[in-house]
Amino acid sequence: MALSDWLLGRRLATLEEEHQRVGVLAGIPMLGLDALASAAYGPEAALTLLIPLGIGGVHYIGPITWLIIALLLIVYFSYRQTIAAYPLGGGSYTVAKDNLGTAAGLLAAAALMLDYVLVVAVGVSAGIGALVSAEPRLQPYTLTLCLATLVLITIVNLRGVRESGMAFVIPTYLFVASLMGVLAIGIVKTAAAGGHPEPVVPPPVMPSAATAASLWLLMRAFASGCTAMTGVEAVSNGVSAFRDPAVHHARRTLTAIIAILAVLLAGIAFLCRAYGIGATEPGQPGYESILSQLVAAVIGKGVAYYITIGSILAVLALSANTGFADFPRLCRVIAQDGFLPSAFAHRGRRLVYSHGILVLAVLSGGLLVFFRGITDSLIPLFAVGAFLAFTLSQAGMVEHWRKVGGPHAVHSMAINGLGAACTGVTLAVVLVSKFTEGAWVTVLLIPALLLVFLGVRAHYRHVAHEVVTDAPLDAQHLEPPIALLPIRGWSAITRKALRFALKITPDVYALHIAGDERTVLDLEDTWAERVREPAQAAGVPAPRLIVIFDPFRQLYRSLMQVVSDLQRAHPGRDLAVIVPELVGTRWYHYLLHNQTAAVIKAYLLFSGLRRVVVINVPWYLAD
Amino acid sequence: MALSDWLLGRRLATLEEEHQRVGVLAGIPMLGLDALASAAYGPEAALTLLIPLGIGGVHYIGPITWLIIALLLIVYFSYRQTIAAYPLGGGSYTVAKDNLGTAAGLLAAAALMLDYVLVVAVGVSAGIGALVSAEPRLQPYTLTLCLATLVLITIVNLRGVRESGMAFVIPTYLFVASLMGVLAIGIVKTAAAGGHPEPVVPPPVMPSAATAASLWLLMRAFASGCTAMTGVEAVSNGVSAFRDPAVHHARRTLTAIIAILAVLLAGIAFLCRAYGIGATEPGQPGYESILSQLVAAVIGKGVAYYITIGSILAVLALSANTGFADFPRLCRVIAQDGFLPSAFAHRGRRLVYSHGILVLAVLSGGLLVFFRGITDSLIPLFAVGAFLAFTLSQAGMVEHWRKVGGPHAVHSMAINGLGAACTGVTLAVVLVSKFTEGAWVTVLLIPALLLVFLGVRAHYRHVAHEVVTDAPLDAQHLEPPIALLPIRGWSAITRKALRFALKITPDVYALHIAGDERTVLDLEDTWAERVREPAQAAGVPAPRLIVIFDPFRQLYRSLMQVVSDLQRAHPGRDLAVIVPELVGTRWYHYLLHNQTAAVIKAYLLFSGLRRVVVINVPWYLAD
Repeated sequence: MALSDWLLGRRLATLEEEHQRVGVLAGIPMLGLDALASAAYGPEAALTLLIPLGIGGVHYIGPITWLIIALLLIVYFSYRQTIAAYPLGGGSYTVAKDNLGTAAGLLAAAALMLDYVLVVAVGVSAGIGALVSAEPRLQPYTLTLCLATLVLITIVNLRGVRESGMAFVIPTYLFVASLMGVLAIGIVKTAAAGGHPEPVVPPPVMPSAATAASLWLLMRAFASGCTAMTGVEAVSNGVSAFRDPAVHHARRTLTAIIAILAVLLAGIAFLCRAYGIGATEPGQPGYESILSQLVAAVIGKGVAYYITIGSILAVLALSANTGFADFPRLCRVIAQDGFLPSAFAHRGRRLVYSHGILVLAVLSGGLLVFFRGITDSLIPLFAVGAFLAFTLSQAGMVEHWRKVGGPHAVHSMAINGLGAACTGVTLAVVLVSKFTEGAWVTVLLIPALLLVFLGVRAHYRHVAHEVVTDAPLDAQHLEPPIALLPIRGWSAITRKALRFALKITPDVYALHIAGDERTVLDLEDTWAERVREPAQAAGVPAPRLIVIFDPFRQLYRSLMQVVSDLQRAHPGRDLAVIVPELVGTRWYHYLLHNQTAAVIKAYLLFSGLRRVVVINVPWYLAD
Repeated sequence: MALSDWLLGRRLATLEEEHQRVGVLAGIPMLGLDALASAAYGPEAALTLLIPLGIGGVHYIGPITWLIIALLLIVYFSYRQTIAAYPLGGGSYTVAKDNLGTAAGLLAAAALMLDYVLVVAVGVSAGIGALVSAEPRLQPYTLTLCLATLVLITIVNLRGVRESGMAFVIPTYLFVASLMGVLAIGIVKTAAAGGHPEPVVPPPVMPSAATAASLWLLMRAFASGCTAMTGVEAVSNGVSAFRDPAVHHARRTLTAIIAILAVLLAGIAFLCRAYGIGATEPGQPGYESILSQLVAAVIGKGVAYYITIGSILAVLALSANTGFADFPRLCRVIAQDGFLPSAFAHRGRRLVYSHGILVLAVLSGGLLVFFRGITDSLIPLFAVGAFLAFTLSQAGMVEHWRKVGGPHAVHSMAINGLGAACTGVTLAVVLVSKFTEGAWVTVLLIPALLLVFLGVRAHYRHVAHEVVTDAPLDAQHLEPPIALLPIRGWSAITRKALRFALKITPDVYALHIAGDERTVLDLEDTWAERVREPAQAAGVPAPRLIVIFDPFRQLYRSLMQVVSDLQRAHPGRDLAVIVPELVGTRWYHYLLHNQTAAVIKAYLLFSGLRRVVVINVPWYLAD
């Protein structure tokens, strides 16, 4: 049935269960795409901070990049251990909750949720940044393009996307190959030119220095550049996706990803310095991304340029897409622990899974609008979330080894401890240096999320306490309900609903709100002939007709009045309001009907009246 | 109950019925605000087209404005007649449908719907344009500010806004008084300086001419300037709002509005020329609205400047707000004729009225994002909708007089005919000269809306045909339904729902999906003790327990299976699925529960299974 498929989406099959157990080569795109895509915005984020230093600022990108690569290696050794310790997958939430307790787990969860929102927002905005660099006439439409891309990704995810290997494999390897190729050519050219290569397309001239370098400025540039490390935790989350021996394959995949990322970062930094490439003012006319400048300087704006930029765009869009895969999964885990509405926890139909997708789309869309689709403005928020999750995960591992004990525990604790300390210090640097630039948003959002988590659990506990009972079924005095059926006139729908009412109770009332007196007389005649007579002939108590005259035909007010009158007339009896509901054969029929049924139900349930049961009798439209 | 009020809004009282019968002084703000606000963007729209002519372009604003004022006067005399002929209110839809037939009426309706969307979008964007002119640092946030304003107006309207007189009276008269004052001071200064006044704050220097004037350019400038006329039809819509003699008061109000608008337009044109004020590039840094330049040139950027700009902002925001009042009202009229979903036609609770508000907010938000909150880009669309409605309304009046006949018919026909001809020609000019700039959007949208109208009516007619019946009630063989109750375990909710099930039928099944075997054994013991024994003790057939073991606990799939098994086992019997529904006491409880109930219902109704009735048994949470 077309409607059901459209509305609910085809079944997810057993996507969640069926692991496509992969090896290293397939694992790199599947779990490394996010981390590798960071190379497209991390160096740029650092260089943007160096703009005020003019051409001199480019010299600092070297040391900053080496510091980031050193941090990356520390985190690498730390995550190698997480992989071994959590072969079923050790996300930050799991590791922090298992080892540091619920509070730390929730803190990690809040950081991760923020992180996924930013993976989407930054992926989209950096992708569009690549696009407007290649096609500067699109620059004024940055935000519109970002939102359109977000809507597209959201729809694709709502409709259901199979994480087909190929969709990730080709763009990832194309991205790595083309960027590595450009870097290799650039390095050869630089060496051949004795360190001062001639750019094919000269990068925009950098403004002269507006300020001198300061430790504060370099610290902020480092903090921004750290976003190049986002996404490296994915492998430790997904160990169970690997072929046996899973830990071995996962570790080799992580090694490959970190190595590629480090080479890309080092190469970009080296060539920026050699070619004198600096960032351009984000969101302003004339903006061109670092990678676009670099590729154009090394190989010119030919076909290879467009292939490289195209692969960057694809990888960034796919990295946004991984946010859509991870966020609902995280929400489900949190909801299963009772900290988010149970709607997030359902298995099965896509309809329930889609809550997470929609929440994510709305949040990232809000960030994109608020920051006008400019990657650079989103970077401070991104860095906080990512490093908070890193730190909690590593700290959790320290505690894990303390509990496990054994001969290697001290060694392992030291490695994870170093990771936790370094990422923790970086987190502090990011928080302090980026506070006024946007990190303050995270300082509000994360505690707000924690409050939501705790509030949700408190509510569920309260409800559970309220409905728990040992009392057995009360099967005494089972009187049938009073049925009340609002009708518009005599139709096949009325006839079917009335018949159903008579099946469940002998006490049936129909309610009609009449706008004029002629209708009243007509309907009363019809009722006598088509309802009362056949009922009496069949020996069944005849349904009674209540007609209320109201020129404004205000259904809801009259319905409430009749409901409360009937309740008073029949104390102790349940009142069942029977609402016929048209069920269409096309999705858009839903827009044309069903409103009355839904409104009546909402009205009855929320009106404060008790003892009202709502019965939906469907009427199926023919095709 | 707080939840009901939050969710459904307080009752509209009899807002629609209770006319606050007004005179001329109160009528001008109530029905003229929209028209007067047009002075804030009409002249600017014309001048923006003249930018390429540089300082020389300003000389053309005089003739263009006189042409617009002449057109305004023709439309004025035409609408005076509409007021007399339709003392109960003659909107374009009504007049066109009554006189030119349904097709013309629907065309007018489509044009008006587009018009109201643009009243909102242009009101918001021009208001924010005024704000960023006064505070240029806000310029990069134009779109964000526009969307935030739109969200604010939408929320205010969803919650319910009483059209209190004062909210309109003060800003309108402040706007008229301060702008008239500035114009008067400017004219006196110009006269005193012999035609070349010294600006207090010099307007931005205009670029030198890039092109020479051409008829084509002037035509496009005129077409843009015509948006100064939007909103003048409001009085003829709202004749019934006036005190007796209503026609007399309405006509005097229209006279006053047209006179004020003409004076404003003429004064603005005169002073732009005298001070050499031209438009600045919209959406670019350095943008400053015409009125901001003009006020600053005449009186400087003191307190009076901020009061004037503040009143412009208020009037534009309120004119956006009138779109929110008019659009749902128009949708209701169209829906009552069966051309829009009946959800738009309901009287009563705000919940149903709010469909129109939400649709309007989404459409205007879409336009704002697409055109990046820049008024100038929205102008071509606005002009088409407004002039199409004008033309159809006047043409309808011509036909009206032909039908009415009588001694004055020829005279009246001539006046309305002139109006129709002039607005028709203007419409053609707008369409041709603005086609590539955005008018093409309307050429797609209006036919699309017409198709929606016709499709909706065809569907409703089809349904009406399908459900019409003369067959009497079939009261034979009334067997109670089979009841099926999905349960999570034993709780007060289960207990209540089970008791209700037993009230309507002796054949009750409970369905539990178990994730592990221990739960199965526990539940079976509980069932024997708490359900079977009490039922047998009361002499009632005991409800049967169906347990399905599924480690993934996929409720929906199992439910479908059991439903279709039970239907096969009991041919001819209805199957009632009983879904307990938690009803909270706070609005956010809705986010925490009810999902399962709604999903089960959607699943059952749209799954293709027939003979399934859904029964919601509410469980009310204690406060």
